[in-house]
Amino acid sequence: MLTFDPVIEAFQGYCDSDPTYCAQLAVHVNGKRVLDLNQGMEVDSLLPVFSSSKGASAVVIALLVQREQLDLDAAVASYWPEFAQQGKGAITVRQLLSHQAGLPGVDGGFTPEELLAHDPLAERLAAQRPFWYPGSGVEYHAVTLGTLADELVRRVDGRKLADVLHEDVTSPRGIDIWMGTPESEDHRVLEALPPTGEEFMAFLANPPAGIDLGTGGDRLSSLSMPSGGLIDLFTRVNDVKFRRVGPPAAGMTASARGLAALYACLRHEVGGQARLLSDETIGQVSQIQVSSTDISGGLQVRFGVMFQIPCTPRWPFGTFRAFGHDGAGGSLAFCDPTQEVAFGYTVQRLPLPGGMDARAVELTRLVRESL
Amino acid sequence: MLTFDPVIEAFQGYCDSDPTYCAQLAVHVNGKRVLDLNQGMEVDSLLPVFSSSKGASAVVIALLVQREQLDLDAAVASYWPEFAQQGKGAITVRQLLSHQAGLPGVDGGFTPEELLAHDPLAERLAAQRPFWYPGSGVEYHAVTLGTLADELVRRVDGRKLADVLHEDVTSPRGIDIWMGTPESEDHRVLEALPPTGEEFMAFLANPPAGIDLGTGGDRLSSLSMPSGGLIDLFTRVNDVKFRRVGPPAAGMTASARGLAALYACLRHEVGGQARLLSDETIGQVSQIQVSSTDISGGLQVRFGVMFQIPCTPRWPFGTFRAFGHDGAGGSLAFCDPTQEVAFGYTVQRLPLPGGMDARAVELTRLVRESL
Amino acid sequence: MLTFDPVIEAFQGYCDSDPTYCAQLAVHVNGKRVLDLNQGMEVDSLLPVFSSSKGASAVVIALLVQREQLDLDAAVASYWPEFAQQGKGAITVRQLLSHQAGLPGVDGGFTPEELLAHDPLAERLAAQRPFWYPGSGVEYHAVTLGTLADELVRRVDGRKLADVLHEDVTSPRGIDIWMGTPESEDHRVLEALPPTGEEFMAFLANPPAGIDLGTGGDRLSSLSMPSGGLIDLFTRVNDVKFRRVGPPAAGMTASARGLAALYACLRHEVGGQARLLSDETIGQVSQIQVSSTDISGGLQVRFGVMFQIPCTPRWPFGTFRAFGHDGAGGSLAFCDPTQEVAFGYTVQRLPLPGGMDARAVELTRLVRESL
Repeated sequence: MLTFDPVIEAFQGYCDSDPTYCAQLAVHVNGKRVLDLNQGMEVDSLLPVFSSSKGASAVVIALLVQREQLDLDAAVASYWPEFAQQGKGAITVRQLLSHQAGLPGVDGGFTPEELLAHDPLAERLAAQRPFWYPGSGVEYHAVTLGTLADELVRRVDGRKLADVLHEDVTSPRGIDIWMGTPESEDHRVLEALPPTGEEFMAFLANPPAGIDLGTGGDRLSSLSMPSGGLIDLFTRVNDVKFRRVGPPAAGMTASARGLAALYACLRHEVGGQARLLSDETIGQVSQIQVSSTDISGGLQVRFGVMFQIPCTPRWPFGTFRAFGHDGAGGSLAFCDPTQEVAFGYTVQRLPLPGGMDARAVELTRLVRESL
Repeated sequence: MLTFDPVIEAFQGYCDSDPTYCAQLAVHVNGKRVLDLNQGMEVDSLLPVFSSSKGASAVVIALLVQREQLDLDAAVASYWPEFAQQGKGAITVRQLLSHQAGLPGVDGGFTPEELLAHDPLAERLAAQRPFWYPGSGVEYHAVTLGTLADELVRRVDGRKLADVLHEDVTSPRGIDIWMGTPESEDHRVLEALPPTGEEFMAFLANPPAGIDLGTGGDRLSSLSMPSGGLIDLFTRVNDVKFRRVGPPAAGMTASARGLAALYACLRHEVGGQARLLSDETIGQVSQIQVSSTDISGGLQVRFGVMFQIPCTPRWPFGTFRAFGHDGAGGSLAFCDPTQEVAFGYTVQRLPLPGGMDARAVELTRLVRESL
Repeated sequence: MLTFDPVIEAFQGYCDSDPTYCAQLAVHVNGKRVLDLNQGMEVDSLLPVFSSSKGASAVVIALLVQREQLDLDAAVASYWPEFAQQGKGAITVRQLLSHQAGLPGVDGGFTPEELLAHDPLAERLAAQRPFWYPGSGVEYHAVTLGTLADELVRRVDGRKLADVLHEDVTSPRGIDIWMGTPESEDHRVLEALPPTGEEFMAFLANPPAGIDLGTGGDRLSSLSMPSGGLIDLFTRVNDVKFRRVGPPAAGMTASARGLAALYACLRHEVGGQARLLSDETIGQVSQIQVSSTDISGGLQVRFGVMFQIPCTPRWPFGTFRAFGHDGAGGSLAFCDPTQEVAFGYTVQRLPLPGGMDARAVELTRLVRESL
């Protein structure tokens, strides 16, 4: 008989040791929710989940691959002819969606308004020369990946990525994630919070190795953020205009319940609906597409088709078969077929240095040991 | 006039400082054996040599390339049509044989019995989706590489890899290595020995950086071993059933004399037979095919066509023109055309952390300085 | 109003703290020279600039790309049919010119005489099997890259690379760099100087991490130097025969004024001549072609089309849009479109460990902050 006591005890420990801790944890095993914890907010509160949005976008991509609307080996330009500009004619869908196309940004930078309007940024990306020769390297396309995936979906399906997600995945199953949060749900939305000043000063005084605190525009990596940079984006996710649109890279709000249900529905019945994806499809999109240090040379990354793939020192969640995504604000959600686990975690205040909360990683380990 | 006194003194020093040291060393220069040392076992004793077997398999591959039976740039599936399943249609022979095809194992693992029977494992590999997008990375296929190479040989030659080795290479030249050890040689076979408990505890107390002692199934790397893992394989090489079959990845028994003669015969007359391979063939198979940290991100590897290529911090034997292979149990054998050296070394008790014995590496250095 | 006082003060500081410091610094902003400093030599003294020569060669390549004489995506063999030997038929111009073709040297090594005569070395390179499978890795082709680029230019233009540079770039603009220094300029040429014995002993006593002081022929990297090795090359750049020919990889003499003007003319009017290259051309040749640790595993490199691209820990000059080249003797020159900076620096005595002088890097930082 299974017991998740060690997981519950660890979560309780976090609550006890940090009075400001506000978080949700939901875990499904074999399609059934077995854990549903919350602290400092309601169990159905919604938080901006930053790049955990990319996991939901990846589910839409997987669905279109399964429906044979999208071929991972096809040239992007076969669906989106304007994309062929500036030496991009041969870039494949799988390269594009695994951060290898050299398009983390555009010359001169882009504005949050261009991002929210979609078409202006998509057009600029189509006209952009890749910052590295396509296929020669990988670097996280923190924001543009959503726009690129969205444009692909619009070209092959006619609908926006967010609409496919809502109509074909979340709405029929009652999954509580919102790529484009409607006014009706605003009352449940909490603000993402920055670290306290104390936490930030302690972090600056003793930054972990490999973390680049620079904010200047000298680096290639600076291209990936809209004008205003990461700190501006952090404020912006709390803006109602931002969440109303919900850019597919980073604009979703969700509860941990919603995130876990999203990954549970891939392989199991949820809300009375048949499982969404076949083993074949999951095999295709969770296959490692690239595993390397990034082109800036600092960070180890491993991507499937839009999904993060774990078992790296940097992303130590799940077994080698798992796939999912974290968010800058600390959230983490994934599916691990090895033990038929679906995991969702949100946290209100960004844990430095950002990205998956170390507490969430520890909880994934305890879940794995409980099974 | 050449003197190998420093090599002999170093070998003697190992014997003096470790009363349990059982090893053989044989070195050829320009096709003539110039060193033939043994300690704690007979000069013609045979030991399981683990992955030094892959060096002998690589010689067979080189021979078929030279005979134009096998084209390194051809698709594997052009010889083995079933291999095209699951997105493997474009994988080339050179990618497959340099650990880049993404097939270190199969979903759900494989048994030692499937390995020994060959066909069941070959069929499962043909049906397997690569664990990474082919060509996007490299990771040691510790066991499956032998099965993959063997199936290729069977398809293009009609014979098993071990039979080609025996009939076309070792038997006419009297080279004392056995991929499939016959009963007639059993009396010369010694058991591979594990480290002593003391050695193991000392190692665990102070493991070298970069060595992963984990044994769980979470990691991609766990796929590469048959069920039972590395420790089970270590026992299994001593099993008569295992050595009777002699899987091409890790199942050979050999003496140091045999290993050195194998590499000597590539470029020189041995046993009255003309040299086996042309400079052209050696150039093709010893060309670096991939040189990188592996996909798990931990280990630096450099492969030619099945051969290990040295001059990396991890494999510091020989000059940049050398090619060969080591075995988990400590053996090492290679050819270095720069000084026309062929080197063979066996050791009975596994030196931690496994792979080429550091003493063997030091002996290669002393040989190089003696010339 | 701009002030470059911090740059001037830093340069003066180097002069004050090192009485043997002999260097030149020239900086253009928006095509106008704004800094022109010299110490211990004349402002128009010429020094051997080693691989800063490659930057000038790269400018010639860019010009031929712009004139559509050369297609970066074409196979090298389409211009130079003999190059197709030994599996090199598919190597593209962009791979060749970004150090990825596997031709840092030739079997058996090459002599300085073969280098100076050009044809013998070009023929041997055409006949050479790549030392790694083309495209599988990158390693600096310290000397052969110039010969390879030169042969390409001769095939598509009919002239030598140095003649195109002189006739189409430097002579009409009065730019003071000499790929092939004529007798008329010999009186201005100073000798490149080695480090003092004291500096060398201090360096050996405390070498920086990652620097390989080995000089043996065991390593792949040893192939890249002509017979005699790096130390011989260092002497040879001072030989009148060497500078009279001026091999495109490392044989140029230049002043800082000349180097800065070379990079200034790419985007601005210099000497009454229109800018040399379009934004489109600059985009093509400054695109990152490869960014990785090199195949020997020790050094991080990032190359455009022949140019070094900065923003790596190893080459920390300029913003991510900059492109240029340094020389073993300490020189550094580049263009940074972000602030419309062109930078040239020479130094007479090699700063250990060689390559861009750390003082030059600091000066680039101060220039950037001044704008």
